[in-house]
Amino acid sequence: EGRESPESPPAAVGGGEEMVGAKSIYMVSDGTGWTAEHSVQAALGQFDHCLVDRACPVNTHMFSGIGDVEQLMEIVKQAAREGAMLAYTLADPSLAQSAKQACEIWDIPSTDILGPITEAIATHLGVSPSGLPRGAPGRTSHLTEEYFRRIDAIEFTIKQDDGALPQNLHKADFILAGVSRTGKTPLSTYLAHEGYKVANVPIVMGVQVPKTLFEVDPEKVFCLTINPVVLQTIRRARAKNLGFSDEVRSNYSEMDYVREELEYASRIFVQNPIWPVIEVTGKAIEETAAVILRLYNDPKTKCVMPRISKRY
Amino acid sequence: EGRESPESPPAAVGGGEEMVGAKSIYMVSDGTGWTAEHSVQAALGQFDHCLVDRACPVNTHMFSGIGDVEQLMEIVKQAAREGAMLAYTLADPSLAQSAKQACEIWDIPSTDILGPITEAIATHLGVSPSGLPRGAPGRTSHLTEEYFRRIDAIEFTIKQDDGALPQNLHKADFILAGVSRTGKTPLSTYLAHEGYKVANVPIVMGVQVPKTLFEVDPEKVFCLTINPVVLQTIRRARAKNLGFSDEVRSNYSEMDYVREELEYASRIFVQNPIWPVIEVTGKAIEETAAVILRLYNDPKTKCVMPRISKRY
Ligand SMILES: Nc1ncnc2c1ncn2[C@@H]1O[C@H](COP(=O)(O)O)[C@@H](O)[C@H]1O
Ligand SMILES: Nc1ncnc2c1ncn2[C@@H]1O[C@H](COP(=O)(O)O)[C@@H](O)[C@H]1O
Ligand SMILES: [Mg+2]
Ligand SMILES: [Mg+2]
Repeated sequence: EGRESPESPPAAVGGGEEMVGAKSIYMVSDGTGWTAEHSVQAALGQFDHCLVDRACPVNTHMFSGIGDVEQLMEIVKQAAREGAMLAYTLADPSLAQSAKQACEIWDIPSTDILGPITEAIATHLGVSPSGLPRGAPGRTSHLTEEYFRRIDAIEFTIKQDDGALPQNLHKADFILAGVSRTGKTPLSTYLAHEGYKVANVPIVMGVQVPKTLFEVDPEKVFCLTINPVVLQTIRRARAKNLGFSDEVRSNYSEMDYVREELEYASRIFVQNPIWPVIEVTGKAIEETAAVILRLYNDPKTKCVMPRISKRY
Repeated sequence: EGRESPESPPAAVGGGEEMVGAKSIYMVSDGTGWTAEHSVQAALGQFDHCLVDRACPVNTHMFSGIGDVEQLMEIVKQAAREGAMLAYTLADPSLAQSAKQACEIWDIPSTDILGPITEAIATHLGVSPSGLPRGAPGRTSHLTEEYFRRIDAIEFTIKQDDGALPQNLHKADFILAGVSRTGKTPLSTYLAHEGYKVANVPIVMGVQVPKTLFEVDPEKVFCLTINPVVLQTIRRARAKNLGFSDEVRSNYSEMDYVREELEYASRIFVQNPIWPVIEVTGKAIEETAAVILRLYNDPKTKCVMPRISKRY
């Protein structure tokens, strides 16, 4: 998977320089496009075996904020010219219908991502969908409690990064502990966007862990561990990036040191048997985040299966 | 929309204290569950008119990391007992088939979120899906260039928050400028998780804007503005939260000051006509993020319609 970097503008993909044989997937949304992108990305995970080495190269093209049928038809025609398929999320049923029909006429494979789940929910609730896209005039405001909580969580989390303000650990919803390069920072900001205040505590050999870590509610503490060989690879990449001197580098990314530091961390982790130790090797940020939320909700639910519940 | 706060554990929803008449939506994934949650949330947006004031109360329940048919059947049975509907993402086609059949037998409305888009892509590419869930053994590693770029972006962005290190502005992919409480920080971390290095520059009346802002590539600069009445509401909430003294508070959240500061910002923004000024009033973080990415990609693509492209 190779996202266009901002330095190599998408024009290279959108223009005539397309890789020969690359298949295009058009995504069209009347909103942000994140839902379509998320679904297409999950589905593309099913083709990793051939996306690797670009054996079946794919280009995706996102068209977001598409509000009227003229724009939609332009995109459908362009998709026909490029031999693309189309995945769409369009709240207005007549616009969704237009997309479907036009794709049939132009012989474009298409998938409605929003329609089926919306219809199922409509039947389930016995309520008709509004048909109004997000951001349509008259929609409810975003200044909900949820909104403020998310903003606060993000700001808290940034201020707490990298062991800052250990006296505030008790204010966090989650506290992540782990050696350098176990992904504490990205995991923290990911969870912050989900509305949780996160603090992270780096474990560094020879540096005292803040004693507040042992005083907070242990259900909030999550320890991260990682395979030493993988950690070394990540640290080497980082040491190179940061231009560490040879001496610092060897301490930081040499195998003996890496192993010793992981063991040092383990000895801290076992001091509280309630703290779960999560293996992050090979996990994407959102995967570790899902594990944490699952573990956090687990002991508290009395259900057959761990579940995470929300109220709307 | 009222997400369970960590202080009010989901047990209250999952247990017997359910609001009378509330309908349940079960989400089941063999992965993290984010895709199902994202789709269900987008679809629920179509019922805002009745979710407001809980006229049609809904509880969602996420079951993630569901890997075998026994767990799946437990969940389906529980859904039947609760009169829930089921939305699922299951990569293994036989597991997805089991979900579908069991829901038919138990008379549970169900929607396959992953299947249709995966099948459409399979046909389009002429390649069979792997049927392997994310995180399955033998899957490719996450230590891709993409992974490292995302991590770097997040760390850069955190270090640059709130006008820190103005000498690094030129290293950012995006620079956000705006007065306090226009959402620069959450927008920055959101874009960072998308892989972009973001710096934000607060505009404060009477404080000099760093001159580097005028020296960087103007295509990277995005100005945020907001309705003064809404801004005042947000600032009042914040001033209360932070326990500002009365004097500071009045300067910060009184209408005259708010208007003047927004005008002061406008006068800075117009100094470079290339900088787009984005109205954030009433927009969710992800909506403003989508606008920025669209504007950024817009002038560079020579296509009929602004598009954002990625290569897989
Ligand atoms: N809060 C919301 N209210 C109404 N529709 C929404 C909401 N959020 C998302 N949608 C719709 O769900 C689809 C996906 O949204 P997006 O992820 O922004 O592209 C689009 O058709 C949006 O219009
Ligand atoms: N990288 C991936 N490789 C294979 N399957 C994936 C990948 N990402 C997501 N999926 C699948 O897509 C669905 C949604 O994933 P998730 O959002 O993690 O619940 C699940 O069935 C996952 O197994
Ligand atoms: Mg860190
Ligand atoms: Mg800020």
